[in-house]
Formats: sequence, C-alpha cells, structure tokens
Amino acid sequence: GTAPVVHAQGATIRWRLASSFPKSLETLFGGSEIFAAKVKELSSGKFTISTHAAGELVPAFGVLDAVQQETVECAHTAAYYFFGKDETFAFDCAIPFGLNCRQQNAWMFDGNGLKLTREFYANYNVVNFPLGNSGAQMGGWLRKEVKGLEDLKGLKFRVGGFGGKILEQLGVVPQNLPAGEIYQSLEKGTIDAAEWIGPYDDLKLGLYKVAKNYYYPAFWEGGAQLSLYVNSKAYQSLSNEYKAILDTAANYAHTQVMARYDARNPSALRELVANGVRLHRLPKPVMDAAFKVSQEYYAELSNKNPRWKKIYADFSNFRRDQNLWFRFSEMSFDNFMQSQKL
Amino acid sequence: GTAPVVHAQGATIRWRLASSFPKSLETLFGGSEIFAAKVKELSSGKFTISTHAAGELVPAFGVLDAVQQETVECAHTAAYYFFGKDETFAFDCAIPFGLNCRQQNAWMFDGNGLKLTREFYANYNVVNFPLGNSGAQMGGWLRKEVKGLEDLKGLKFRVGGFGGKILEQLGVVPQNLPAGEIYQSLEKGTIDAAEWIGPYDDLKLGLYKVAKNYYYPAFWEGGAQLSLYVNSKAYQSLSNEYKAILDTAANYAHTQVMARYDARNPSALRELVANGVRLHRLPKPVMDAAFKVSQEYYAELSNKNPRWKKIYADFSNFRRDQNLWFRFSEMSFDNFMQSQKL
Repeated sequence: GTAPVVHAQGATIRWRLASSFPKSLETLFGGSEIFAAKVKELSSGKFTISTHAAGELVPAFGVLDAVQQETVECAHTAAYYFFGKDETFAFDCAIPFGLNCRQQNAWMFDGNGLKLTREFYANYNVVNFPLGNSGAQMGGWLRKEVKGLEDLKGLKFRVGGFGGKILEQLGVVPQNLPAGEIYQSLEKGTIDAAEWIGPYDDLKLGLYKVAKNYYYPAFWEGGAQLSLYVNSKAYQSLSNEYKAILDTAANYAHTQVMARYDARNPSALRELVANGVRLHRLPKPVMDAAFKVSQEYYAELSNKNPRWKKIYADFSNFRRDQNLWFRFSEMSFDNFMQSQKL
Repeated sequence: GTAPVVHAQGATIRWRLASSFPKSLETLFGGSEIFAAKVKELSSGKFTISTHAAGELVPAFGVLDAVQQETVECAHTAAYYFFGKDETFAFDCAIPFGLNCRQQNAWMFDGNGLKLTREFYANYNVVNFPLGNSGAQMGGWLRKEVKGLEDLKGLKFRVGGFGGKILEQLGVVPQNLPAGEIYQSLEKGTIDAAEWIGPYDDLKLGLYKVAKNYYYPAFWEGGAQLSLYVNSKAYQSLSNEYKAILDTAANYAHTQVMARYDARNPSALRELVANGVRLHRLPKPVMDAAFKVSQEYYAELSNKNPRWKKIYADFSNFRRDQNLWFRFSEMSFDNFMQSQKL
C-alpha cells in the first residue's frame, strides 16, 4: 500500500465518527461526545470530529466495515458485536466470566491487552482505544421468572454479542438487536426477554414497562468495555501531537463514562423498584452451568482459532491472578461497607 | 489580588512538580512522571514539568505549603496528609469507611466531589485534580498478631494520615511518617507496625523483612486517591488549551496508576507469601468498633467544622447510594468469579 500523507502539525482536520448507539443514551453516545469535545479543546479547535448516532451514516452494526473501508475515519462501538466475524473481537469488550472493569483496565493499560488487541485489529485496518466501560451489567428483563435451568429452554433473549454463544448452549435462543429495536420487540412479544446495560440506560429505554423481572448479574458482561475504532491510514496521517490528543481524549472519555454509570445507576435503580420492578439474582445452578459451558467453549475455540488462542492464554492467566488479589482488601472492604447501615 | 498574566497560546512554559513520594516507587512517583510526559507530548514539547522526589525541593509533607506559596507551581501528593490543617482535606483522598476507587471516581467526576473539593482548596490557592488511586489498601505489617481489640492498645502504628484519628480512639498510637522513613523505624522498633499501600509498593520498601503479619483490609483507605495540586495563579496564567492539557494529562495518569496497581499487585503478593508472609483478615470486632467510632467522629466533626460538614453531607449520601447499587451486579459477579477455580 501507499504510505499515508502525514498532516502538518497544527493542521485543520475534520473527521466523522459513526456510533453504534442512539443519541438518547448520554452514557454511550455521550462517551463519543465527551471524546470529540476533548479532541477539539486540546487542539484549540483545529481537530474536530462530528459524532453520528447509529443509522445516521451507517447501521449500528455496520461501523466496523465503515472504518475498515474508511467510509468514516472512526467509530464508537462494543467490540463483541463482531464476534460473528471472529470471536477474538470480544476480548476488547467482554467475554462471559471475564474481567471486571478495573481488571479490564489493568489488562489493557498495564498488561498485554492493548498490545494484543491492536495486533489483532491490524487485520481490519483498525487502531483501537478503550472508550468507556459499563461496569458489571444487569442480567436483563424477563416477562417470566427464571427459577432454574429448565426455564431457559427456548427463551428468545436479546443479549449483547458474545454472551449469546454461552446462553445458546443452555437452551436460550439469542437475538442480537441494536438498542433502538429492543423495546418494540419485547413489547410485541417477538422476544421473551432482553438485557441491555443497567438501571440508568434500561430506564431510558423503558424496558421495565414491558417486563417486570430484573435479573443480576450479567455473567457475560462483568465489565463491558467500549471501543474507539480509528482507521489505521487515517491514524497514521496524524502528527504525533494529534495522535497523543486522540489517545488522551479517548482515555479521558473512558474514565468519564464509567463514572457516569456508577453515579447515575443508584437513583435509576430506585426509580425502577418504585415502578414495581422485581429484582432477582440469577439462580446458582444457572451460573454454574454457564460457567462450565463457557470454559469448554473457550477450550474448543482455542483449538480452532489461533487468534483467539493467543489472546486467551494471556487473558486467562491475568484473570486468575486478578481474582486471587481482589479477594483480599478489595472484596473485604466492599463486603463490609455493603453490610453497614449507611 | 492582581489578575494573573495569561500566557499566549502555544507559549513555552517550564514548571516544577514537588512529589510527596520517593523515586523508587514507580506507582506513586511514576504517576507524576506519566503526567509530565503526557503534558509535554500534548504540547509538542512546549509545556514541560520537571518532577522532583520528596525532599529534593521540599520535604514530603511540605508540598502543600510550597504550592500555596508558589515556591513550586504544582505538587503530587495524598491529600489526607494535611488533615492536621483541616480534616476536610481527606475527602480528596480517603476517609475511613469511605468510597472504593470506582465510587470515588464517580463522586469526583460525575457527582459533586470535584466541585466541592475545589471550593475548599480555593482557601489554599490550590486547584486540585485526581491523579492516581491505589484501590483498597492492605491494613499493614505487624510484628505481633492482632486477635482482638485488646491487641491495639499502645500499638505504635505508622498509618497514613486520617486513619490514625480513628485508630487512636481504639488505643493505637498513630505515627505519620513518609515512605522513606518507614522501613528503618520498623526495623529499629521505634514503631510496632506500619501500613503503606499494598503488595507491590510494600514489597519495594521491604517491610516484610521486619514484620511478617500482613493484615487486610485498610478500612481507612478503601480507595485512596492521589492529587495533583496546582497553584491557582499559575493555573490561571495558562491558555485554555494548556488548561485542557493539564486536566487531560492528569486524568490519563490517574487511570494508568490504578491499572499499574491492579496489574502488578498479584505477583508481588505471591512473592510476599513465598517469603513467609502470613495474611490475616482484620478481626470483625476491630472493624465493627472502628466503624462505630468513625461515625461518631464524623458527626462530631460536622458539629465543629462547617467545611467538613458541607462536604460530608454530600459524600455520605453518595456513599449510601453507591453501596446500595454495588451490592447487586458488581458484587455478585466478583463473588462468583473469586469462588471459581480459574
């Protein structure tokens, strides 16, 4: 290929960002707005990125192709949407029984996560940056209660990306729908159940109006990370200063998105409960069966997908070490605080 | 006062940063280095900040005065070191039974934390920025085991800042020593016990060589945040672009420091255990007594310190809501993962 033309330092640049999310969600779509505003501010208004909601330039799940083909310079998305192309995408977002938010940050920023995922994304002309995390998500909205494994059989469940691969093996019929289509499908009965994110976003989508049983935790999303995708040629055309601006602005938005979720979820949860929502913990046999199935599935994937194998080897060691460490101070502090009258 | 002279956009600026930490700790001192490197990168080398370890320009605990008097333009420190001037400083770092790292971020970035602490710091000519967090710290190194409250009586314990105020009421004799003096004091027997941070830093200081009992959790530091202090006049002299660079670079370093701790603590913990360290959970009666004492103390402070009162009212509501929410998905996911064979 030809070498990209590098823009002069301080050049005026305009990019477009295609989001996989609707404008109404200021946590998700808002993440791309925080990012774009920061890029502009850091470049004294010379580097501007316009943000476009799902469907405006390309469909929610079309953003990877759009960046790969340079239809747009960048996108904001959840990488596990693309597990159908390659399961390896999911490491840049969440795999069932994976890392929590802090552990995912540790793996990306101080472990091998960013290095390994960038190596993988090079096959798609993409340079990736973490841009937001939801924390451990809620397990979703069900019309009927799930009391055991038998209640999962045939359940038409909207579930984000990769989680469906595990739920499928427990009898669930997973559905991969973008945010904008969930409410209607659940209302019409095209699906029996749907998970989206957590109290704040779910309240906005109004899911509690069409299903009252709210389950936790989403074992398939213990800390789902969002990503900024930048076309590699567009990235290489930037001056070093603008590259640093892009990286730092993404990091800034990354932190703000998690803070927004944590700060805003509690009152949303209270409002949901006031509206008659019933909170349920996923039954232990369901969690245990899903864990067992996931480990078998990962072993199988490691046998047939060398890209998966390479990253999973590093990821699973990291996960083991993180869970060893977090059970001491972190868990005992949180446990104690949660058991107090505050 | 006189209005500060505002530097032209893109001006060449050199600042000095005084750290409260020794160069040997690449988590703490390293945080200021990550920050300074990012400021330089974002300004194409025009805005440079030299970083100076504790004692190089001013002593570890002298950095606040140095920034207030503009002896240096900025500092990197742990705010609770200054609780002797005003207990209110501690909200910008950690109070006993306070917030964990994610909750502190949520309070600072999307709650009222940054706004309220900045209002407070204006009295000291300081503009504060979060720059790093340690996560929930370990409770420290003790020569002798603590089996109950009676073992705390007369214990000479090096403990970070504000935590000592609570431990004091349980009979402990708290000592406020900077990192560089802990090992020697513990070795000589000037103190009976010492807490510093967690496995990675504690291993570097070699504390396990002079005390073998390692307790958890540090209930006084559930998520200790570090701060960048900038002299307000120096800050006001910056162009908007440089102000944004300062803010974003601090935020970048903030995320990196927590990632470093999480990624590096597990192997340090393993090494400590291999060296004969014995891990102990702080006895429940000690935790319960400390919690009770802390709540009484905060009520007392609210009666006599209006600056404390104002922030504590907001902080304690936020803490209650956070602990309500975290017990669902976040806790159940972490609990499940920590109980698996990974």
